[in-house]
Amino acid sequence: MTMQVDTDAFLSDLHELRRIGAFKTGVHRPTYSPEDMESRRWLMAKMEAYGLKPEMDGIGNVLGRHPGNGPRLLAGSHIESQNEAGWLDGALGVVSALHLARSGLPVDVVAFADEEGHYGGFIGSRSFTGLLEEAEIDRLSNRYHGKPLRQALEEAGLAGRKRMQFEPGRYKAFLEMHIEQGRDLEGNGLRIGVVTGIVAIWQWKITITGQQNHAGTTTMAERRDAGLTMVRLLAMIDQEFPRHCAERTVWTTGRILMTPNAQSIIPGTAEVMFQYRDVDRAVLDRLEIALRRCVAESNRRERCPAVLEAVSKAVPALCDDGLQEALAGAAEALTPGGWQRMPSGAGHDAQYMAPHIPSAMLFVPSINGISHHWTENTSDADLALGMRVLAEGARRALAA
Amino acid sequence: MTMQVDTDAFLSDLHELRRIGAFKTGVHRPTYSPEDMESRRWLMAKMEAYGLKPEMDGIGNVLGRHPGNGPRLLAGSHIESQNEAGWLDGALGVVSALHLARSGLPVDVVAFADEEGHYGGFIGSRSFTGLLEEAEIDRLSNRYHGKPLRQALEEAGLAGRKRMQFEPGRYKAFLEMHIEQGRDLEGNGLRIGVVTGIVAIWQWKITITGQQNHAGTTTMAERRDAGLTMVRLLAMIDQEFPRHCAERTVWTTGRILMTPNAQSIIPGTAEVMFQYRDVDRAVLDRLEIALRRCVAESNRRERCPAVLEAVSKAVPALCDDGLQEALAGAAEALTPGGWQRMPSGAGHDAQYMAPHIPSAMLFVPSINGISHHWTENTSDADLALGMRVLAEGARRALAA
Repeated sequence: MTMQVDTDAFLSDLHELRRIGAFKTGVHRPTYSPEDMESRRWLMAKMEAYGLKPEMDGIGNVLGRHPGNGPRLLAGSHIESQNEAGWLDGALGVVSALHLARSGLPVDVVAFADEEGHYGGFIGSRSFTGLLEEAEIDRLSNRYHGKPLRQALEEAGLAGRKRMQFEPGRYKAFLEMHIEQGRDLEGNGLRIGVVTGIVAIWQWKITITGQQNHAGTTTMAERRDAGLTMVRLLAMIDQEFPRHCAERTVWTTGRILMTPNAQSIIPGTAEVMFQYRDVDRAVLDRLEIALRRCVAESNRRERCPAVLEAVSKAVPALCDDGLQEALAGAAEALTPGGWQRMPSGAGHDAQYMAPHIPSAMLFVPSINGISHHWTENTSDADLALGMRVLAEGARRALAA
Repeated sequence: MTMQVDTDAFLSDLHELRRIGAFKTGVHRPTYSPEDMESRRWLMAKMEAYGLKPEMDGIGNVLGRHPGNGPRLLAGSHIESQNEAGWLDGALGVVSALHLARSGLPVDVVAFADEEGHYGGFIGSRSFTGLLEEAEIDRLSNRYHGKPLRQALEEAGLAGRKRMQFEPGRYKAFLEMHIEQGRDLEGNGLRIGVVTGIVAIWQWKITITGQQNHAGTTTMAERRDAGLTMVRLLAMIDQEFPRHCAERTVWTTGRILMTPNAQSIIPGTAEVMFQYRDVDRAVLDRLEIALRRCVAESNRRERCPAVLEAVSKAVPALCDDGLQEALAGAAEALTPGGWQRMPSGAGHDAQYMAPHIPSAMLFVPSINGISHHWTENTSDADLALGMRVLAEGARRALAA
């Protein structure tokens, strides 16, 4: 017999949260905005109502502690949203965690602040795991309108509050349910994803330096066209990466900036933001070797030098095998054959918990794969099923 | 015995004009600005002083008519400048024309308005040759600050003035001296360029449509990355064009715009401004065929469709053979072995005169190839030599 969950109450709370900062069918709840702070206070009231002792800390993390002794789980996600975006991204993980506690399981519930990075990606979960220094808080500001983080915390009434650190030994595991934000489950007619790990993003910047000049009077032999060197290098990478990637590796040039970027002027500089993602460290390492080889070859052939810079290299966060088994067992019991194991191509707070305690994630389908947009959605039936699988998985994990 | 010219007076006038709208060692004389209008009034006073009858028309063209009968030449260029740019670009052609008249040759002198395109490229020479409609003047506005052309003309005191048309049969030829704006003469240790023709620019826009999506959660198989399709297409063009180009063809992707151009988002669209230039119509045509083949092949292979659009296709303007002989003879007489024939990779007012009357251009070296920058320069010695070659060439052309 699987864990009993009042999925109507779960859906009711999800839809109630949806009304805070409502924007069309989604929400606009940027971190530390009035709507975001209202959602945190809503959450604390719910925590109280469901028997947890709530606290909000100096970075805006909200933790609801389960009274009594262990063994205990931690569960949650983030509660702020991208601008004018979806109602489930983050909110699903927080409300489902709340309902693990409401169902009687010994679960602390957490909402980490600013996973979405209005000020700095994952500053809440990083703060909770001891990775956020005061000096970094001093430096950060809002990426859209530039407000300093210190000022935002002040305006939100959080200045001077201590920041919580997670208590080692308090939790047996961390669980986070999330929408897939992709089309894989929907495309394969499945309803649950048991996440194998969270890919690491290795973000690179390639800067190519040429010589800005007149496109008409500068001969082909003489010109140093940074844009052309860029095209040749990206074409080389396009040829090389399939030789070294793994089955689910993704790589993307998302951003290109040439100067002066004028139709009759030879580009003097070209800047490329190139990234790749995989869950396997060995793959990430060999793609770096391939990338460096391409840049070195470009520098041997071309007149415009290219400089490769690692902007950030995250660590893949593997989900705990035992927890995966618990969730897989729950999924098979509740939707036989209707689930798969899969990596998470997007970052989540779970990746910061994973180095400290066994962690796992559960995915539900995203309709049309849409996220970071107000049309983001998942059917109530799939949300309810996810809640039941999460609860049964949590029960099994605690029993193991 | 070659034509006598007072090159000291020529250089003196050039340096005097340099003081109007002076900016560091260059000038800032945007079309119809107070400085530009002052330079036009300066020019008209010089025309009077040198025995010409000056007139400024409704688009700002300034024409100084030589009294007496033909045969007669027209000579000149433009007098406004790019923003914070060089003192010689355009000004050299106007002042050298002035000194053809001052030297006693039967020459009308012209300064065409806005060759530099603050409002619309070549509107002065296009107006003079009957290619500028009132409706176009109504539509045009300043590309930097958006002021409507009509308003600028009003503020410059030109509203309501008729626009001059060149008189068919009045001129035997058109001559324009200009700085090279490239490094070819300097690089080859030469002092004079006899221009064979003005290249035509064929400007294309390539628009590629993909699907914007999450760079982490969208698999490589499923994504439709407009930026990647763009890189592959540009790489294909890079391979193909050398198979079809001529010796001095140039081709350039000056401008790339991807949306949303964010590091973690698969580009949904990519727009490319691609151009090529040559003086031979047959070359321009076969490059179009090659370009269309590349786009067609891209559309056969790729998931993101590419649309090719001709933005503009100018006509190459060949310089008259007889005038080239006259200038070449003058160059050989005054700087034996110190000159070459060469095309102009940049557009000039001469390209609009060329369909109507035999036209030719003369180049002097640009130090470091710099133009469209306030450091643009040519030595006084090279300027003076150019003036003498132009005068001797004009004498020979009139005698022929």
